[in-house]
Amino acid sequence: MRLMTLRTAAGTRAVRVDGAHAVELDASDVGALLADPDWRASAAAEDGARHELAGANAAPVVPCPGKILCVGLNYRTHILEMGRDLPGHPTLFAKFPEALIGPADPIRLDDASAAVDWEAELAVVVGAPARRATEAEAEAAIAGFAVLNDVTMRDWQYRTTQWLQGKTFEATSPFGPELVTPDELPGGTRPALDIRCTVDGDTVQSANTGDLVFDPVALVAYISTIITLNPGDVIATGTPGGVGHARKPPRYLGDGAVLGTEIQLLGTQRNQVRASAAIQA
Amino acid sequence: MRLMTLRTAAGTRAVRVDGAHAVELDASDVGALLADPDWRASAAAEDGARHELAGANAAPVVPCPGKILCVGLNYRTHILEMGRDLPGHPTLFAKFPEALIGPADPIRLDDASAAVDWEAELAVVVGAPARRATEAEAEAAIAGFAVLNDVTMRDWQYRTTQWLQGKTFEATSPFGPELVTPDELPGGTRPALDIRCTVDGDTVQSANTGDLVFDPVALVAYISTIITLNPGDVIATGTPGGVGHARKPPRYLGDGAVLGTEIQLLGTQRNQVRASAAIQA
Repeated sequence: MRLMTLRTAAGTRAVRVDGAHAVELDASDVGALLADPDWRASAAAEDGARHELAGANAAPVVPCPGKILCVGLNYRTHILEMGRDLPGHPTLFAKFPEALIGPADPIRLDDASAAVDWEAELAVVVGAPARRATEAEAEAAIAGFAVLNDVTMRDWQYRTTQWLQGKTFEATSPFGPELVTPDELPGGTRPALDIRCTVDGDTVQSANTGDLVFDPVALVAYISTIITLNPGDVIATGTPGGVGHARKPPRYLGDGAVLGTEIQLLGTQRNQVRASAAIQA
Repeated sequence: MRLMTLRTAAGTRAVRVDGAHAVELDASDVGALLADPDWRASAAAEDGARHELAGANAAPVVPCPGKILCVGLNYRTHILEMGRDLPGHPTLFAKFPEALIGPADPIRLDDASAAVDWEAELAVVVGAPARRATEAEAEAAIAGFAVLNDVTMRDWQYRTTQWLQGKTFEATSPFGPELVTPDELPGGTRPALDIRCTVDGDTVQSANTGDLVFDPVALVAYISTIITLNPGDVIATGTPGGVGHARKPPRYLGDGAVLGTEIQLLGTQRNQVRASAAIQA
């Protein structure tokens, strides 16, 4: 099953994707849908208004997650090629919902940063409460997967030891278009999917999500040791090599740049970077 | 004005504190109250059911903030006595709402951590949206102040470079009892208040909130450069010297320990540390 949150004249609406059509569901967005313990059955069965998907205006697939946890340093090949040891624990930091945008929305280029960088990531969306989850419970708590680009202000990320402030700038992180359930994916809850990031058409990141050190199931179990994961919560699983900050010379996103982020079977984002003033006008 | 969120048989309820009484307001909690742009006037005028405050069951004063930002290294005296330079930027990290408990609730001692530590803090509660706020706008966006103890699992905090995982364990951070508006406090939106933390009656931290490097107004302005602060959002402004991890030998909180956290004019927390099993039983 494939789910989206669309912007309509009457506000956002959760939809099920049926081929080239969107079928409206009885929930204002995918986050609200997932709060219903029977969301799988109701989303599959409901038969609301149908629209052509072409030209639809996609919101962040979960517009306001209760929690967004991000993972650093999680692609095995990239860690090893940098000569580092594989980590014993996932590095976790946060992003706040105000940072999220839809998969075709402009990325707000803030005058405050001169080092805006990309991080293509596989995002896990939680579909049931998980607390001190076993492996089986963690698998069952995964609603599905979506594309997320953890766009980062490197100058702010490294102002202090804690990365949060560079990771949560307003309206910078595209999320979506679709939430795809594990049964549609090779590898299921541990999907092995090609992930790719482009800037103005140049491929800058290219990897496979099967290369994660801490896979989605392990991350749900680990985080649930700390805190309850709730429906709609999001885990961004980390980015592979190829970010702009690590290039010599560094490459950052400027006004007008087009960022493409795609994961096989999950869909493609295309976001143009725009100066704040242009967006506000 | 003094506001609290009380647990009642019908769920939580925002109240105004009138001397020894609580007056019920038309909001389920203080966070819901603050979402009304006219909250100051309506909270002052409303005259709902009155209860004796004695014996009331206080929830976290804002039970589910949209965002909780925490500040590291922010007491001038402590930074200087450690021989460090004053920081040019605040160190920011996150906590999630599931970590919050009421001011008299048990602190959940998780088997997963053997290094549970205290951090008495002044918390700022946001009362109006703030985005790229000037100093005057930042002052106006502050609803008031409350006590928060940023209880920390040191072993998890230092597993990786990012502190989040040690800072957001379920049901560990007391918040409240009261939200007190700036007009009630010496220093107003930059309050100068004695802050103290005790463990089993021993004073372990003692300082004054006038010693902050980045004061509440500066923090609201700084964070609003990054992201919109919304009503009910919380900023925990950092802790003074005297935490258990820095002692030789270190001192941590064990089962049965009583943690006291108080700030002059804002109230006192008293939380007993309890093994998880005892709380769940």
